Amino acid sequence: MSAPYKTFTDGDLEALRAICGAERVIPASEIGEDYCHDELSGVHRRPDVLIKPQTAEEVSAVMKYAAANNIPVTPRGQGTGLVGGSVALFGGIMIDLSGMNRFLELDQENMTLTLEPGVLLMEVSKYVEDHGLFYPPDPGEKTATIGGNISTNAGGMRAVKYGVTRDYVRGLQVVLANGEIVELGGKVVKNSSGYSLKDLIVGSEGTLGIVTKAVLRLLPLPKHKISLLVPFPDLPSAIRTVPSVIRASAIPTAVEFMEREVILAAEQFLARKFPDNSSDAYLLLTFDGASKEEIELAYKEAAEICLECGALDVFISNTQERNESIWSARGAFLEAIKASTTEMDECDVVVPRKHVAEFVLFSHELQKKYKVRIRSFGHAGDGNLHIYVLRDDLPEDVWKKTLLDVFEELYSKAKTLGGKVSGEHGIGYAKRPYLGESLSPEELRLMKGIKELFDPQNILNPSKVVVR
Amino acid sequence: MSAPYKTFTDGDLEALRAICGAERVIPASEIGEDYCHDELSGVHRRPDVLIKPQTAEEVSAVMKYAAANNIPVTPRGQGTGLVGGSVALFGGIMIDLSGMNRFLELDQENMTLTLEPGVLLMEVSKYVEDHGLFYPPDPGEKTATIGGNISTNAGGMRAVKYGVTRDYVRGLQVVLANGEIVELGGKVVKNSSGYSLKDLIVGSEGTLGIVTKAVLRLLPLPKHKISLLVPFPDLPSAIRTVPSVIRASAIPTAVEFMEREVILAAEQFLARKFPDNSSDAYLLLTFDGASKEEIELAYKEAAEICLECGALDVFISNTQERNESIWSARGAFLEAIKASTTEMDECDVVVPRKHVAEFVLFSHELQKKYKVRIRSFGHAGDGNLHIYVLRDDLPEDVWKKTLLDVFEELYSKAKTLGGKVSGEHGIGYAKRPYLGESLSPEELRLMKGIKELFDPQNILNPSKVVVR
Repeated sequence: MSAPYKTFTDGDLEALRAICGAERVIPASEIGEDYCHDELSGVHRRPDVLIKPQTAEEVSAVMKYAAANNIPVTPRGQGTGLVGGSVALFGGIMIDLSGMNRFLELDQENMTLTLEPGVLLMEVSKYVEDHGLFYPPDPGEKTATIGGNISTNAGGMRAVKYGVTRDYVRGLQVVLANGEIVELGGKVVKNSSGYSLKDLIVGSEGTLGIVTKAVLRLLPLPKHKISLLVPFPDLPSAIRTVPSVIRASAIPTAVEFMEREVILAAEQFLARKFPDNSSDAYLLLTFDGASKEEIELAYKEAAEICLECGALDVFISNTQERNESIWSARGAFLEAIKASTTEMDECDVVVPRKHVAEFVLFSHELQKKYKVRIRSFGHAGDGNLHIYVLRDDLPEDVWKKTLLDVFEELYSKAKTLGGKVSGEHGIGYAKRPYLGESLSPEELRLMKGIKELFDPQNILNPSKVVVR
Repeated sequence: MSAPYKTFTDGDLEALRAICGAERVIPASEIGEDYCHDELSGVHRRPDVLIKPQTAEEVSAVMKYAAANNIPVTPRGQGTGLVGGSVALFGGIMIDLSGMNRFLELDQENMTLTLEPGVLLMEVSKYVEDHGLFYPPDPGEKTATIGGNISTNAGGMRAVKYGVTRDYVRGLQVVLANGEIVELGGKVVKNSSGYSLKDLIVGSEGTLGIVTKAVLRLLPLPKHKISLLVPFPDLPSAIRTVPSVIRASAIPTAVEFMEREVILAAEQFLARKFPDNSSDAYLLLTFDGASKEEIELAYKEAAEICLECGALDVFISNTQERNESIWSARGAFLEAIKASTTEMDECDVVVPRKHVAEFVLFSHELQKKYKVRIRSFGHAGDGNLHIYVLRDDLPEDVWKKTLLDVFEELYSKAKTLGGKVSGEHGIGYAKRPYLGESLSPEELRLMKGIKELFDPQNILNPSKVVVR
């Protein structure tokens, strides 16, 4: 790929070393392979330089240098993305924010956590839980950075009850494409003071600015939780049960669906038995709350609804051990599917909750129609599906064509059901064509205009989300 | 006020009548006084024409005509705003959306309500509660339209537990300044598909587009609720209690603070006794939940915390009658204060929760310093204060100067505490100078750029929020 950017020179390297110190400015020849791709998207490119800043001021100075010299800049967290969002498609500067990983302030009175973007999601949970507090967003990839989660507006399992990352970002410090540092939002609970720039940055995948600090909203830690594993004779009867469960008096924290094939893959991958694998389809429900009584009422009601709707049984999981066996399997689905094939790509559509069954059955049909293995699991409670198309032993050309055809069918089906291209993984580079197809010309015009306003030189993570 | 807009002519009137039908296009001479101002801001201007559209297509056609002829357009709901947002500062076309007030679809499976913008907030609550569902945002002004609530990102009492209007807007249909109709978001729970244009429209006060349809997220209706009225010897001890209450295991639905003077004004206004008026300051707490046991645990814990923190007593209000006597007083505060003076203006700042006491005490000092009556009440749980400066018998010039001085002090104090100009009433026309002072030059530049992108001719609600 080429573009109208300045060719990176030794002079640029020296100038950047003067800004950040030589030991944190790594030339292309010494950049590890990991920085050249992400977890799935199939795009690969080595940055010309890798910078590991320690402060927002350094990020700002680098950005000012890049703007003055027309060099593209790609921000990166842990590189756990699936759509190429953190790959330096045009080379240039990669800013690795994973070293800016300090907890800055836990404010117990305002129930906020201020932190740097490189803190890992798993560290956030642990830190706040140690203080009796709770950060609800719970994406499967716990080694992602919180900055990455903010950039993709990550969702996760608990979105049914608690919402997504956007709902927990109260304030952001952002370095703009021109190097200016802005503070958006803050610790306040309400805000009607002009256009919500903070909400533009959330989910913008590093194309409008680089997040260098965040203020997160916390909740009291629910003291009790319980999971129900509910086998059903088939997927449609499982998924048709979901709206009734959510419509009951207490909203479940999570409602996941899983099919036997995926459970078997996880068992094999983990070399560990799942509590049950005799049924075709399962729902996994979780409830949390402040008291035992509260969640007992909730899960009993849910169990009754499931049995009325055709569930074969209801396994209650209230021991740490049993919970772990279920949730570690659930957490391993992506890796297990990946390990079962040679190559794969994924579709992360979100559809209105009531269309989940229809969509998954549609993917089953595609499996037959295109003679390709397709596996799925996902968030039945919020309509966000993860559908994986597996290459297995398909020759390169057949694989490429099959993947294109299957994706085209999936995204176009999602559109007819009122769904969206991405529920939580973002658009990055890989899903851009599908975003383009799903948006109206006016929406595209406005998104391109916003990109141009924030980044007139198109140097900030170019060719991601939208192209001007 | 003058501006570079086309002078409205009889020809324009005829053209608009051809679009919407003569009976729904009202010439200036027949426009009622109510349409020339809002509830508080002190600005007054008669539109040249008032249009009462019935469909998004009509709004679109009017907007296209306005764009082609360079005529300013001011959208309006019920005109209950307090900052001049719905006043036609440059004359031109006023679009009254209160007649587009149909419920379009209650989707029980996806738990969404699709409706037109003119539906009143009180009608939304009633409609969904009749179906066992719950729309949490609960601003004091129940006769506002839902379109107005979306345009100001209205907050209300229950923001402590449930968040604000933004958190319940899943999708919007919007007519842009060029007349194009766009659909943003939808019924989906998660969305990471490009920049969140929906979140830009929420809170943009009709300056970026006109909302013609909304998809709202609903929750199961909590079956039980209870209120606690808690007297304290003084305001600081009341407000200092709030973080501990919120930090406990169950988040209260609402935490309001009130001072004796305001309660006395409400008693007089309603000619009805409040359960208690012997103390200087009160907290009013509400808890809701799916079961009696759940809220009993919650309110007992809260009551203990209050007593430990110096509360004089805890009155439990679990009868409909008692609840009504408390909440009708709370609901009448604004009107009661208004009735107690000749003229007033308000400051709707939001500060981090832990600074509420400091801010209210600061307003007490200003009362002495400027020899003017200042009254306040508000949302102790979310830091959003409503502070009213009362004219009483001050002469015009003294009043104007005092108001300016007091506002300057209040907004600048809010800024030093990490607060924002408006928590929920918006910026409109009246608070624009304070927004300008509170934003950084870069934030202002971006907001102006967004306005220019969405409305290059500056015909959509001009001179509100930001000026280009």
